[in-house]
Amino acid sequence: MKIGVIGGGQLGRMLALAGTPLGQQFAFLDPAPDACAQALGEHIRADYSDRDHLRQLADEVDVVTFEFESVPADTVAFLSQFVPVYPNAESLRIARDRWFEKSMFQELGIPTPEFADIQSQENLDLAVKRIGLPAVMKTRTLGYDGKGQKVLRTPEDVHGAFAELGNVPCLLEGFVPFTGEVSLIAVRAQDSQTRFYPLVHNTHDQGILRLSVASSAHPMQALAEDYASRVLDKLGYVGVLAFEFFEIDGGLKANEIAPRVHNSGHWTIEGAECSQFENHLRAIAGLPLGSTAKVGESAMLNFIGAVPPVAEVAAIDDCHVHHYGKAFKAGRKVGHATLRCADSATLQARIADVQALIDRH
Amino acid sequence: MKIGVIGGGQLGRMLALAGTPLGQQFAFLDPAPDACAQALGEHIRADYSDRDHLRQLADEVDVVTFEFESVPADTVAFLSQFVPVYPNAESLRIARDRWFEKSMFQELGIPTPEFADIQSQENLDLAVKRIGLPAVMKTRTLGYDGKGQKVLRTPEDVHGAFAELGNVPCLLEGFVPFTGEVSLIAVRAQDSQTRFYPLVHNTHDQGILRLSVASSAHPMQALAEDYASRVLDKLGYVGVLAFEFFEIDGGLKANEIAPRVHNSGHWTIEGAECSQFENHLRAIAGLPLGSTAKVGESAMLNFIGAVPPVAEVAAIDDCHVHHYGKAFKAGRKVGHATLRCADSATLQARIADVQALIDRH
Repeated sequence: MKIGVIGGGQLGRMLALAGTPLGQQFAFLDPAPDACAQALGEHIRADYSDRDHLRQLADEVDVVTFEFESVPADTVAFLSQFVPVYPNAESLRIARDRWFEKSMFQELGIPTPEFADIQSQENLDLAVKRIGLPAVMKTRTLGYDGKGQKVLRTPEDVHGAFAELGNVPCLLEGFVPFTGEVSLIAVRAQDSQTRFYPLVHNTHDQGILRLSVASSAHPMQALAEDYASRVLDKLGYVGVLAFEFFEIDGGLKANEIAPRVHNSGHWTIEGAECSQFENHLRAIAGLPLGSTAKVGESAMLNFIGAVPPVAEVAAIDDCHVHHYGKAFKAGRKVGHATLRCADSATLQARIADVQALIDRH
Repeated sequence: MKIGVIGGGQLGRMLALAGTPLGQQFAFLDPAPDACAQALGEHIRADYSDRDHLRQLADEVDVVTFEFESVPADTVAFLSQFVPVYPNAESLRIARDRWFEKSMFQELGIPTPEFADIQSQENLDLAVKRIGLPAVMKTRTLGYDGKGQKVLRTPEDVHGAFAELGNVPCLLEGFVPFTGEVSLIAVRAQDSQTRFYPLVHNTHDQGILRLSVASSAHPMQALAEDYASRVLDKLGYVGVLAFEFFEIDGGLKANEIAPRVHNSGHWTIEGAECSQFENHLRAIAGLPLGSTAKVGESAMLNFIGAVPPVAEVAAIDDCHVHHYGKAFKAGRKVGHATLRCADSATLQARIADVQALIDRH
């Protein structure tokens, strides 16, 4: 089976590393000449709206999937005429737009921060009156890793904020006094079977994920699975979906979903029986899902901007290196380390070792 | 770092799957147009003695390694002028020839079956008188998977056997009443550090490996490591070396070594902290070695001739599919399954499940 992937970055690369042993082949459509997934498959170098090359991809492969959610709707609709596309167009339509996303949560009875659609500075001024400050303003589409966001703390911050974010449709979200951030990696098969990985504790810095630690018996696991099931079934979803939550006193509030394999699930390559990458491919290829059980105690640390010398990362016990083969650049995710340890105390010590290495470089 | 591999079959393919996350790139020199490793790196399609293309490979890569031991000596010598080659020429010279290999075991005090160099039918007749029947006659070079061998049970079998095996130099080996076959996967780094995986119990059928089961506390582990250390140090070896032994009452007799990653080590991809493939690459790239400890209870079953439907293999709990992407052909190794289980009883049940699936297809 040949898999077409829209996008050829590290997620495509890790999909291909997981799918090659299943006998799958890969083609990546990505305009970047140095797309790092191209080491593992065919690289169709074209824009995401280039219909000739989209058609070429559709003709070559058995199924198409995505590395990122901001794919143009037209691209998805065009491809869907010729080849199965997972996740489906509706899932991408919802996930790419924060307003649709939050509205769906609300409709499904999933708690979220207060929110409002912002189409103008006037909308914003009114919404701030209702929701209060502090609040977070985010572009409805295209934001990631803290980009396209602005925290509003004072009336001065509100003034002119709509223009600052580019005069584009935005969402205003009320501030949630959260105690932590967790994500649930879920997978749904073509036959509607669903599986869930253990909840992951995430630590961000400057809007970028730094550390993910897989939980062992999180008290909110069942609640998170219930919320995710509502979304998966509503969307008729096929593949891996990541669901980010704020932990609040006694519950969870939905932050956002990502209709794809997710950075907070990278630990599953070594830390789970079957990784998120393999399970995504199993789902879209119509294969039975693999086990989402943990193997040992696991965590993931991102390498942002640069990968420390591989010899030093590899020298840390229980540590697995993932170098994406991308050019180093400030703020860019260029690799990660997975730790898989016998117990939590060892895991905490190893996290400190990797963090010290990151801090030195 | 870019790694050059002589040979582009499944071993090269699995090396690249292990090395890509280390940030390594791969080039494979292989004359076969359909060499299955080419999905994961550059394919230099050329004969192993083609100096122009060997030179091209040497110029492109930082280090060269091998997928098989029957590489012409001239190839190794030629490459060694331009680029580091691991394992070294001496290791390949010894491992490619059963006479050199057995003579080295003898020199190092490692027990072996009785053996004799056979250059003619007269040599053979004399050697049979000394060693007795039954005995096994093997070509000194180029044999694998039971090819280039003949079991001699009666004087009639001996008559004309030298011509039957092609009038080429052979080795006669006395029959060993062994109780089992085990292999030790060893790895030695550039700084002489060595590590060993747990001994593996191997089951062959018609000369081809079918099943490998990793042991938990084999009573001969220390002895096997002692023997392997003598060989590794003698050869100044760098990389993974597989050492096959006959288990006899109260000890081990050396059968043969393979100067490369080995089929009986495939279980390490999921079943060990760091796989044989990653450890080979760490060794030849000058990185610290990874842990050879087991993760759970593990076994490997080969798919010979055909891979059963992936959906059926993937449906077995604890089972990991490895499809090599090669054309199916009787007697050919085209894939394998790894099992990684919580305990030995579960492992035995899963081995039966996979075997039943193989038998059905």
